[in-house]
Amino acid sequence: MTNIAILGYGTVGSGVAEVIGTNAKLVEKRAGGLYVKYILDLREFPGDPYEDRVVHDFDVILADPEIKVICETMGGAGAAYKFSKAALEKGISVCTSNKELVELHGAELSRIAKEHNCSYLFEASVGGGIPLIRTIVEGLAAEKVERICGILNGTTNFILTKMAGEGAEFATVLAEAQEHGYAEKDPTADIEGHDAGRKIAILASLVTGKKISFNDVYTEGITKLTPVDFAYAKAIGMQIKLIALYDEQGDKHYAMVSPRLIGAESPISCVQGVFNGVMIHSNMLDDSMYYGRGAGRKATASAVVGDAMACAASIGETIENGLSEETGDLANIGTYAQRYFLRLKGSKSVRKAEVENVLGKGHIVFDIEKDEFGFLMDNAMEETQFMAKLEKLQGVIGYIRVL
Amino acid sequence: MTNIAILGYGTVGSGVAEVIGTNAKLVEKRAGGLYVKYILDLREFPGDPYEDRVVHDFDVILADPEIKVICETMGGAGAAYKFSKAALEKGISVCTSNKELVELHGAELSRIAKEHNCSYLFEASVGGGIPLIRTIVEGLAAEKVERICGILNGTTNFILTKMAGEGAEFATVLAEAQEHGYAEKDPTADIEGHDAGRKIAILASLVTGKKISFNDVYTEGITKLTPVDFAYAKAIGMQIKLIALYDEQGDKHYAMVSPRLIGAESPISCVQGVFNGVMIHSNMLDDSMYYGRGAGRKATASAVVGDAMACAASIGETIENGLSEETGDLANIGTYAQRYFLRLKGSKSVRKAEVENVLGKGHIVFDIEKDEFGFLMDNAMEETQFMAKLEKLQGVIGYIRVL
Repeated sequence: MTNIAILGYGTVGSGVAEVIGTNAKLVEKRAGGLYVKYILDLREFPGDPYEDRVVHDFDVILADPEIKVICETMGGAGAAYKFSKAALEKGISVCTSNKELVELHGAELSRIAKEHNCSYLFEASVGGGIPLIRTIVEGLAAEKVERICGILNGTTNFILTKMAGEGAEFATVLAEAQEHGYAEKDPTADIEGHDAGRKIAILASLVTGKKISFNDVYTEGITKLTPVDFAYAKAIGMQIKLIALYDEQGDKHYAMVSPRLIGAESPISCVQGVFNGVMIHSNMLDDSMYYGRGAGRKATASAVVGDAMACAASIGETIENGLSEETGDLANIGTYAQRYFLRLKGSKSVRKAEVENVLGKGHIVFDIEKDEFGFLMDNAMEETQFMAKLEKLQGVIGYIRVL
Repeated sequence: MTNIAILGYGTVGSGVAEVIGTNAKLVEKRAGGLYVKYILDLREFPGDPYEDRVVHDFDVILADPEIKVICETMGGAGAAYKFSKAALEKGISVCTSNKELVELHGAELSRIAKEHNCSYLFEASVGGGIPLIRTIVEGLAAEKVERICGILNGTTNFILTKMAGEGAEFATVLAEAQEHGYAEKDPTADIEGHDAGRKIAILASLVTGKKISFNDVYTEGITKLTPVDFAYAKAIGMQIKLIALYDEQGDKHYAMVSPRLIGAESPISCVQGVFNGVMIHSNMLDDSMYYGRGAGRKATASAVVGDAMACAASIGETIENGLSEETGDLANIGTYAQRYFLRLKGSKSVRKAEVENVLGKGHIVFDIEKDEFGFLMDNAMEETQFMAKLEKLQGVIGYIRVL
């Protein structure tokens, strides 16, 4: 039996206690059992089955030599960072669901873990309960990952699925999502792509073996998408998804988040509602995909508990987590080549030649709205070049990148 | 640098050498490097870059104290079993792609590995390069897996995808698949569901923590499916797939392989061609899915190399692989409750009441062929009960189970 502490008794933290309780038998069989000795929270939880474990002072936990593993489910990069660091420096392993902290200080905390023969694991920080981190670090250990293309945010995928299915406006669906608890009161981090951006920064760090910063990830949200965009997508048999992309072109590495059109032939286009899905292209295996609930109390907590079980089975050792302090860099997306879909004013029969003269051949030209038409480029073009060419065209209503 | 030997220089074995060669830099960075010191094969390989490593006597490998890991890619349960056992008894870890051997003797070999502080790993034996074994054993460590529903055989999925798309006969598509090398000259193991059956036996063993034997798995192949079956499936918006199923109902465990109708809402229905896809339902995470190439030289070899890297990083230790010698048992599928689709002779308007009287309400009744109709049961019924009721019905052309 390994004694553990949970830091933060909110949604995920209380889920961790529940998963350990519900699956106690198999946790014991597979990892010798986990005992929740302390729960750190500023609040009291009268009537909670774990109310007697609640403490308000982290030093109580740190001072107890029986504590071998800490589940950090507080969030944020303030106290969570301070507590994680202090624990690791005492040789206590830390498992976390905190993507902000992992993205900012994960590499440093991993070095500290190594120096003190313990582990810093973060399976729950990306893709909730889908075992993505372990898959990249261990399952695909023999693979050179060349591309990751994922739906990493359930809130926005719920909104986009609704917009596609019902022809509804963004604001209407967002309000509905907030009402049902699928979107937060301040939805900025989700709808502007910051949440997905932090996650792709973590995945890119694992894949490159270098520290990739969220600050270098280009992010664009879903707020400008309209029902007409979805009508065009439907007409060409494609889906619009908020895609977190890591890609190599030549010797350059790119990471970005933006809405993209995806063809029905990609399994990613099948990912609906709050589900997440990540397609990984690697040099030997080719494409593989991982799909599931990317968030939610029990799914996320399960990943934290899985990490805690791994730590409990490896006391005194460091489990490799794929992070490194060596700085990696991303190329500016200006040089990234991709296809675009455009909406243009006017009549397709009148303007086709002019548009193709600027952008090259377009595979499909069709119109849904009166006095406008859609144009799907046949060939990829670098982002900067595309932006420059846009200025030569009159009446550009909008564009969407194509996966 | 860890010295390894490859047993069997066929498709997968030569792939192992190629993966180690192609990804040498990252193998070195992540696992300190692998050096292929010996290749065991009865043949010579003049001109092959590794021709100087080829030996014909296993004892040469066994006698070399530098060899720490063996990649067993011979197949079969004869020499492969003997060599694997001898290696493990000397503390040499063994990584294999050999599902037959894992299914038959994996539990015993795992015990021997534990007794000699080495590892027996078999990621490549199920789902090719998709990291399924690791996902179940480690990624979903905190989960009680309650159901696995998978397309685990690429050959049959290729055939079924072709039959669905082209309305072709089974025999025609099989011949085409054989011509293109997607099916073997003797395709029995694939088309009769034995290959998928061995794989689901292995996954069921991991999930139950007990030894589940392929002999106890009910298997039914795809040879009786006709273009008319696919026409009905299309009419109700479903796919026909060869599904390997592990499921719990009450306190009973079931494992079986058979063709099944699957609704479009399941991501499993999106798995086309030679790809594999496995949906896992577990008690905390809910549904998660894993998708990719379930076979193929490089994909399978990559999984073997990934295992070899893990062994190289854990010399002197045993990596938990989830197998146990404790005998587990499966319930007879006679008590398994599921829905069925039936094809019946006659006119739906004349026979509907009679059929519903025997089988209960049917959700959809329609006809494609003259003088016959299709009937999709609304509610699940136990297999034995269904078979008994079938005898009360005249003119049953056939039935397909529904997922």
